[in-house]
Amino acid sequence: MDNKSMQTKDLVLQTALGMFRSKGFTKTTMRGIAAEAGVSLGSAYYYFASKDELVLELYRESVGEQRAAASAAMADTTGLAVRLKAALHAGVDALTPYHHFGGAFISSALPPQSAVNPFGEASGKAREDAIAIFAEVIEGTKVPVFLRAQLPELLWLGYMGVVLFWVYDRSEDQRRTRTLIDGASPLIAKLLSFSRLPVVRPLVEEALALKVRLRP
Amino acid sequence: MDNKSMQTKDLVLQTALGMFRSKGFTKTTMRGIAAEAGVSLGSAYYYFASKDELVLELYRESVGEQRAAASAAMADTTGLAVRLKAALHAGVDALTPYHHFGGAFISSALPPQSAVNPFGEASGKAREDAIAIFAEVIEGTKVPVFLRAQLPELLWLGYMGVVLFWVYDRSEDQRRTRTLIDGASPLIAKLLSFSRLPVVRPLVEEALALKVRLRP
Repeated sequence: MDNKSMQTKDLVLQTALGMFRSKGFTKTTMRGIAAEAGVSLGSAYYYFASKDELVLELYRESVGEQRAAASAAMADTTGLAVRLKAALHAGVDALTPYHHFGGAFISSALPPQSAVNPFGEASGKAREDAIAIFAEVIEGTKVPVFLRAQLPELLWLGYMGVVLFWVYDRSEDQRRTRTLIDGASPLIAKLLSFSRLPVVRPLVEEALALKVRLRP
Repeated sequence: MDNKSMQTKDLVLQTALGMFRSKGFTKTTMRGIAAEAGVSLGSAYYYFASKDELVLELYRESVGEQRAAASAAMADTTGLAVRLKAALHAGVDALTPYHHFGGAFISSALPPQSAVNPFGEASGKAREDAIAIFAEVIEGTKVPVFLRAQLPELLWLGYMGVVLFWVYDRSEDQRRTRTLIDGASPLIAKLLSFSRLPVVRPLVEEALALKVRLRP
């Protein structure tokens, strides 16, 4: 994509986000976005086949931002709790401008028939990138070897839970979500270190085997 | 409510559910429901102020069904894993007829601004009843005393996770959800019994304290 195209694409996206904010997601149409951005409807559709595509692009961009910020914040530490905290805060930071339409995104993106649901095919690449952030979280830490293969996806699932909590969070600046991240990260790190105990390990192995059985 | 009223209310609800199934949730209107049920629009609105109210009634009924079936299934056992399994299966049993519009319910009920979101005020009574099912689950079991006050709500939250998994479950008769319940229940029971270990207990106590701090 050349520079001009990138600019137009970004203009359409930013216009759409502004309109989602001011008019609400459901009332915003592709036609309205094109008119507001001053591009033809055909041009808007060229970059985004639907409003769903715009949501997906937003998701992709937020993952990119989260990844860059998390990497930077993790550079100087090997402690799992600190690294996990950094990745989770970076994710919420990237989403914060969109908190007021978190509910609309749940309606549009969470239903299983949605083209952009976070567990679906269309969002596969963004999901892989998001899971890769949590693979980086455990790099260089003391996480037990038998956990390493499945842990990034499990941590990402936990992050999805944090995002759901954040959508419902009505406290000022979503402070409760920050409390959740700060409180849960060291607990998860400790829990993972317990998985080495001979009495706990079989339980964790059973849980991992269950997760494999649950794959579609 | 007299018998005739109860019948009319139920007729409106059953008609609505049939239409949600055949036409989809969003395309079904209160006017259409009234016409199909052969009652006046005023009468339909008398029982249900909105489609949201119909969703809430469905939620209430499913909790009632779950509770009755769970109580019956738990009557002869004091094992936590078996009791938890019974309560979770009973919940999914009650929801099974509505699987094909699980996605529509997510759109309508899950957003935080929805009047009937499962964490909101309007659904408070139904939520209490649902949590009471999990209070019954731990009755007579060996769950450590320090966990008893908060555990029913935590188990209910876990059940909400199972419901979300079920909504996404495209396997035949949602078998993966059944596998999840059968696999996770004994793991949760074992995990809870570990919370007695001197090394684990402080961690669990910290998690409970965090949960208290996260209350709105």
